[in-house]
Amino acid sequence: MADSKVSPVPLLKDELDIVIPTIRNLDFLEMWRPFFQPYHLIIVQDGDPSKVIKVPEGFDYELYNRNDINRILGPKASCISFKDSACRCFGYMVSKKKYIYTIDDDCFVAKDPSGKDINALEQHIKNLLSPATPHFFNTLYDPYREGADFVRGYPFSLREGVPTAVSHGLWLNIPDYDAPTQLVKPLERNKRYVDAVLTIPKSTLFPMCGMNLAFDRDLIGPAMYFGLMGDGQPIGRYDDMWAGWCMKVICDHLGYGVKTGLPYIWHSKASNPFVNLKKEYKGIYWQEELIPFFQAAKLPKECTTVQECYIELSKQVKAKLGGVDEYFIKLADAMVTWIEAWDELNPSDSKAANLPNGAQK
Amino acid sequence: MADSKVSPVPLLKDELDIVIPTIRNLDFLEMWRPFFQPYHLIIVQDGDPSKVIKVPEGFDYELYNRNDINRILGPKASCISFKDSACRCFGYMVSKKKYIYTIDDDCFVAKDPSGKDINALEQHIKNLLSPATPHFFNTLYDPYREGADFVRGYPFSLREGVPTAVSHGLWLNIPDYDAPTQLVKPLERNKRYVDAVLTIPKSTLFPMCGMNLAFDRDLIGPAMYFGLMGDGQPIGRYDDMWAGWCMKVICDHLGYGVKTGLPYIWHSKASNPFVNLKKEYKGIYWQEELIPFFQAAKLPKECTTVQECYIELSKQVKAKLGGVDEYFIKLADAMVTWIEAWDELNPSDSKAANLPNGAQK
Repeated sequence: MADSKVSPVPLLKDELDIVIPTIRNLDFLEMWRPFFQPYHLIIVQDGDPSKVIKVPEGFDYELYNRNDINRILGPKASCISFKDSACRCFGYMVSKKKYIYTIDDDCFVAKDPSGKDINALEQHIKNLLSPATPHFFNTLYDPYREGADFVRGYPFSLREGVPTAVSHGLWLNIPDYDAPTQLVKPLERNKRYVDAVLTIPKSTLFPMCGMNLAFDRDLIGPAMYFGLMGDGQPIGRYDDMWAGWCMKVICDHLGYGVKTGLPYIWHSKASNPFVNLKKEYKGIYWQEELIPFFQAAKLPKECTTVQECYIELSKQVKAKLGGVDEYFIKLADAMVTWIEAWDELNPSDSKAANLPNGAQK
Repeated sequence: MADSKVSPVPLLKDELDIVIPTIRNLDFLEMWRPFFQPYHLIIVQDGDPSKVIKVPEGFDYELYNRNDINRILGPKASCISFKDSACRCFGYMVSKKKYIYTIDDDCFVAKDPSGKDINALEQHIKNLLSPATPHFFNTLYDPYREGADFVRGYPFSLREGVPTAVSHGLWLNIPDYDAPTQLVKPLERNKRYVDAVLTIPKSTLFPMCGMNLAFDRDLIGPAMYFGLMGDGQPIGRYDDMWAGWCMKVICDHLGYGVKTGLPYIWHSKASNPFVNLKKEYKGIYWQEELIPFFQAAKLPKECTTVQECYIELSKQVKAKLGGVDEYFIKLADAMVTWIEAWDELNPSDSKAANLPNGAQK
């Protein structure tokens, strides 16, 4: 697709926020400075709000701790998780930009096979600005990349693609394994650089990891709720999974695409598998019922906005997963609260007039 | 998946035939000698049967020309295309092995990024002997490869995978483009080595290319019919596409997996785009109706063998595509003839007793 290939990648610096959940000083930003400094950062401080998080000089940021979240959302703050990186989705809500990139603070700049530093954000922007192809698989992967195209037998009517809502990046070094796999393979490292971007086909679910993730907030933002995890909840480490499953069902319904593959970041350290096991174990058996639920979920054609889709999905969660555990009834309610809070902070008719108060800078 | 990773790849030399359609001397085999010589070759000579095809010394082969095909199949030979590489599927039918690898005679040994010759057949065998994962996408691609596994959020109940029926390999250098793309991008070369094998998800169609393709003949053989192409037919260059769409619908129904990605071969020369355009142009607009047909095709659960599925699909082709062009009525009949011929040469109860006569060696 010649046109999109030769043009330089726009920085989109006024259209993209970087959202970082953290409990510590953000020294990791030093390595990202050449790539992140042009952007505005939204830092969501988890845990003790009295702790001061140091941000390296020269970065433009706003920082929200738990007190800020409570003040801004009032009783609706109950939908934002505490003591879990799921809190990051508060940043999606307060952003006013078209695009979001979110990254964990233990992720560093990876190198491509030639030894060059990978500008992860640039690749995400490429992924988001070029169409996706969920209706038919292209064997040479992303047909919009330089040096690639649609192969013989790819229907011409599908070559325009659909808008890309999500770009899911990967990780070199520590792979994103669950606790049982971590325990069984403590030494496994991901050393394979797979030089591909591909669209997850329509009606196919995947495990979306929040470590290195970009999305078009205008297209899919309200579906990017990371659920109830951590403090006071029976599970953790399913925040991004939950968001990914909900988001994918809604993207399939609304005709948006989801890409995975490049870019890689360098994931520096494995979290503790014993702690993870405690957080995950209910999720590990619940997901056996969640996946068939999401695979079968159908949204009525009357649902034409992300919000409408999400509210409908929350009803189905309550009706069909409420019997799995009462947690899902609480989660379904939180999904509704999330949408109410989103709409409050993002009234569609007067976006600019509703900047949240209370951001620290 | 620790167990399957460390074991050496079996050669399967008594269980695999290599099928090569050709109209010329098979000099290309010299380059493949280290990899192909242990195997039995089935050469399907296309075009003028009086021409003598030279095969390099030391290869074990049987060769069938058009006269052989006519003699062996009698009136049923009408289902085997002439003057088109679709004739290769005759080789699948006369083979008695569990696995088939088929390759075009303009495909050479490719090199991996380290400069090492790629043993394509070994990678295909790896792909076929390890399970596939069509029900859920794994973001680190094939979870059964060395250094990879299922990522967090992948349901444990799906980690056994399903039997792999097809391994679709790719091509460096000349990409498999249709005539319009060839005309628009005459200089494009595929230089991107993507170090991945992945399962095409259930219910997702893809363009299967016959250039570098392996499959489990016991699992899916009778679905690998390459249709009516070439001499006397209104189209060409859709043989492998047709087989791929039929095969995928049947694999989805029967619970088998289809992989694509590694291995690469080196595709040496582009075919003439003007000739290709003439062969393809009807296919280019027909496929706009074929794809929705195959995407919607459902097989009744009473169909439990590949043959039953294929006969059912032929009926649907006749009923639903017959109106697109009368060609599809002829093709639907040929699909039935193909199955009859397959069953004649492969009576399930006495496989060994039915070796075809008339093979030249």
